[in-house]
Amino acid sequence: MQQRRMSDFVSHMPQALAEARAAATRGEVPVGAVLTDAAGRVVASAGNRTREVHDPTAHAEILAIRAACAAAGSERLPGHRLWVTLEPCPMCAAAISAARIEILYFGAEDPRMGGVRHGARVFEHPQCHHRPEIHDGIAAGESSAILREFFAARR
Amino acid sequence: MQQRRMSDFVSHMPQALAEARAAATRGEVPVGAVLTDAAGRVVASAGNRTREVHDPTAHAEILAIRAACAAAGSERLPGHRLWVTLEPCPMCAAAISAARIEILYFGAEDPRMGGVRHGARVFEHPQCHHRPEIHDGIAAGESSAILREFFAARR
Repeated sequence: MQQRRMSDFVSHMPQALAEARAAATRGEVPVGAVLTDAAGRVVASAGNRTREVHDPTAHAEILAIRAACAAAGSERLPGHRLWVTLEPCPMCAAAISAARIEILYFGAEDPRMGGVRHGARVFEHPQCHHRPEIHDGIAAGESSAILREFFAARR
Repeated sequence: MQQRRMSDFVSHMPQALAEARAAATRGEVPVGAVLTDAAGRVVASAGNRTREVHDPTAHAEILAIRAACAAAGSERLPGHRLWVTLEPCPMCAAAISAARIEILYFGAEDPRMGGVRHGARVFEHPQCHHRPEIHDGIAAGESSAILREFFAARR
């Protein structure tokens, strides 16, 4: 029987949700991400910053991946796990694949912009050369509520 | 009749090919990109740097978009045109959409990794909220030759 790691029992979605809430207070679409290494340690966490840094690629997932890669001195993150509050868009899904992330946990599905379960379905084509294990629906209600409140307040 | 701009008659693919060749000399997969603004001025150009900067998102297109957005102080680049030597991957295609780039010119198709004409076909789903005008096959032979030589030399 495969030995279970402590990290298998720890959810980092609460921290990802905190990043999403912090993004909302900055006026950014509230999505948050946390990246853990093979030992289960948090190596990066981020919320959206596209407006603040004038960068359309500054989604939570991309910022976390870039920070972790810079710290690791590698363009690949084998054994790492990414926790995201919302279904990644096609850009982020492809970056997750390029970084060789092992497991993707996400919260709410995103029928409007998502690229994992919807639309481009980036991981489901032969052009995708690394597909993470995927666990979805984690704290989906809370993730959706944060997004709903953010957009309701802006109407 | 719509007035034609000077920029309509200038191809920036030679500069993109030069960026691809420069990437090859750095040991990076030789893909190059040039971004021009609404007046036809070159505002950014880049080649792949994923290995050099330890960043799986450092594709030529992403680097050019990030540089141009930083210079413009905006996460959107309306009226801009992107010249790329190779069919963009899903990550870059989604970034092109997010940046609201008006016209995409690319060289060779990429059946192995592409996300425009192959696989994810990022622009062809309702989840894609901005689709650029696309012109492909520009200097495709030269683009392919640069890639072929690069990989042949590494075998």
